[in-house]
Amino acid sequence: MATINDIAERLGITKGTVSKGLNNAEDVSEEMRKKILETAVELGYVNKRRLKREKKLCVLVENIEYQTPNQFGHDIVLGFKQMAEPDGWTVDVIPIDMEFQRGIPYGVFIMEHGYQAAFLLGLTLLDPWMQELRTSRIPTVLYDNYIKENPNVASVGCDSQEGFELAVKHLTRLGHQKIGLISGPLESYILKARYNAYLAAMDKFGLEINDNYIGLGYYVNDSTKKYIPRLLKEGVTAILFSHDVRAISAITECDDRGIRIPEDLSIIGFDDLPMTAHTMPPLTTVRQDRTALGKCGFYALSSLLNHVAIGSILLRAQLIIRDSTGPVRPEGALEAGVPNRWPHPRTPESSS
Amino acid sequence: MATINDIAERLGITKGTVSKGLNNAEDVSEEMRKKILETAVELGYVNKRRLKREKKLCVLVENIEYQTPNQFGHDIVLGFKQMAEPDGWTVDVIPIDMEFQRGIPYGVFIMEHGYQAAFLLGLTLLDPWMQELRTSRIPTVLYDNYIKENPNVASVGCDSQEGFELAVKHLTRLGHQKIGLISGPLESYILKARYNAYLAAMDKFGLEINDNYIGLGYYVNDSTKKYIPRLLKEGVTAILFSHDVRAISAITECDDRGIRIPEDLSIIGFDDLPMTAHTMPPLTTVRQDRTALGKCGFYALSSLLNHVAIGSILLRAQLIIRDSTGPVRPEGALEAGVPNRWPHPRTPESSS
Repeated sequence: MATINDIAERLGITKGTVSKGLNNAEDVSEEMRKKILETAVELGYVNKRRLKREKKLCVLVENIEYQTPNQFGHDIVLGFKQMAEPDGWTVDVIPIDMEFQRGIPYGVFIMEHGYQAAFLLGLTLLDPWMQELRTSRIPTVLYDNYIKENPNVASVGCDSQEGFELAVKHLTRLGHQKIGLISGPLESYILKARYNAYLAAMDKFGLEINDNYIGLGYYVNDSTKKYIPRLLKEGVTAILFSHDVRAISAITECDDRGIRIPEDLSIIGFDDLPMTAHTMPPLTTVRQDRTALGKCGFYALSSLLNHVAIGSILLRAQLIIRDSTGPVRPEGALEAGVPNRWPHPRTPESSS
Repeated sequence: MATINDIAERLGITKGTVSKGLNNAEDVSEEMRKKILETAVELGYVNKRRLKREKKLCVLVENIEYQTPNQFGHDIVLGFKQMAEPDGWTVDVIPIDMEFQRGIPYGVFIMEHGYQAAFLLGLTLLDPWMQELRTSRIPTVLYDNYIKENPNVASVGCDSQEGFELAVKHLTRLGHQKIGLISGPLESYILKARYNAYLAAMDKFGLEINDNYIGLGYYVNDSTKKYIPRLLKEGVTAILFSHDVRAISAITECDDRGIRIPEDLSIIGFDDLPMTAHTMPPLTTVRQDRTALGKCGFYALSSLLNHVAIGSILLRAQLIIRDSTGPVRPEGALEAGVPNRWPHPRTPESSS
């Protein structure tokens, strides 16, 4: 563990100046203060007295909405706080973006604010701080992302493999065999995990894995438009989606084309967004218990702070069966040309 | 949540009798007491007052030695206690076997002793209690084993995939390409995980996966004897072992046959048993941090007790590089027939 002395020696300044820099004293130049903080981070210095006094954690959020209860990140943040605050921690929740990350190194940001550890939501492999996290000594937990070989960084998420296995099991019981996947591109950690989970589940139930049953595309609506007809043409009778937003887009697309859900096509999402209970039909989906995810985030951070080098915590997945899945359609039914026999127009008034 | 009333109704007895049965009162027959406990378990009854008063956990151990510091289970139990006891829990450590499990259902055993939850070490898929764990409502954490779809049971273990990836990376840097695996049979959860980790690591580094490089056998020494010559004949220059005990058996076998480690063959174990630092040569191995595993066990149990349905926690693996791995042997070196040029006899005196 590095001391103030080590920082002073490295920079060729007095211990007093280092101490002033670490405590934001006014008689240290901004430039020197930054140099001191960066060196402190590099050497792994920890201001134990300050940390003991303050007990501060932060949740840093990018690309995920969390301010209101119906937004995806809300309950994750809530669950984290529900564990941390009774335990005496102050939790700051801070939205960040790429620009922000380019402006200040991760370690300096954390040290500057006196945080002991951080829970990061929504960062992708492209984020500037991800590079720094490979070697960072700050206890950090990532949601749905993973850093290799760094014992200071842990990952939490929902078990994609369990989720898609439950989904495929449910579909096979309904008679489906040609089951497709529509997902975002495999450049992200979590989409790769979902893709592998799909392959593993198909393999587990002895179903054919066929590249033509899989559609990967960046833009949600565009790829739905493109892949739904293509997969139907291949004889696919059910489709798993990497995220609910894609499954919801598929509901609209199918409605426009007169493809009935679930009579012509069964679909299953992933996430259980609050709105999926109110789509028409209501969506069968794999639930991520978001409050529990937030709590897991705190358990993982506690472990790291306690020098227990957890690599990952996976939360149980749950299949929520609603009306977007049904028995497999009779062979040839769709090819015969089915008109739009959707029972209700898509207006909220008729959804009861 | 079931109440005393529910148990009384189900059994057609008074609430007073149920209460006596649950509290081991003397004026209830042994047979009735057992019936009451079994019904309580079946209905998911929890005696909150008693649990609050007692705060008791148990660690149940099978097939793993833990009494002295050099035994594998010792530090796992220690780590668990180090977390649990300061938190106000009493921890009982109890050795069990198949016979014991056949004598009493798991849920009844737990309830009878007033445990809130349990950490199970060393159970295999063949154990009688494993069947009951599929549906048990008792918060339970398993080391190196996994129960599907039961949110009351979580799994902790070391990340086999990370471990073997580090091992294969190390070997490829030393020039090895034909890397074998010697393991126990794939009937256990953890051996299957190690096997898949081996395949994934080989695939990751673009190395040939060949059934002839793999030896699976139940008996440690017999399978070492059988597979080492067979794998060497295939041109394998390095072997991963599913456990240190197998790697240690390989050291003896190679010594007997005049095969030099690491000149002729590099070997890597898994576990980092205390003795592996003192074998000759000292063994390169994947470390499971056992104290941390015990602590993970407690984190996982805490989560379950807090209704956070963790499925699994994986601890970081670490590669401990010692002397049983070295640069790949020149092609044909072994076929030319190498005499036993082991530098020292295998006696402790010369190991310095």
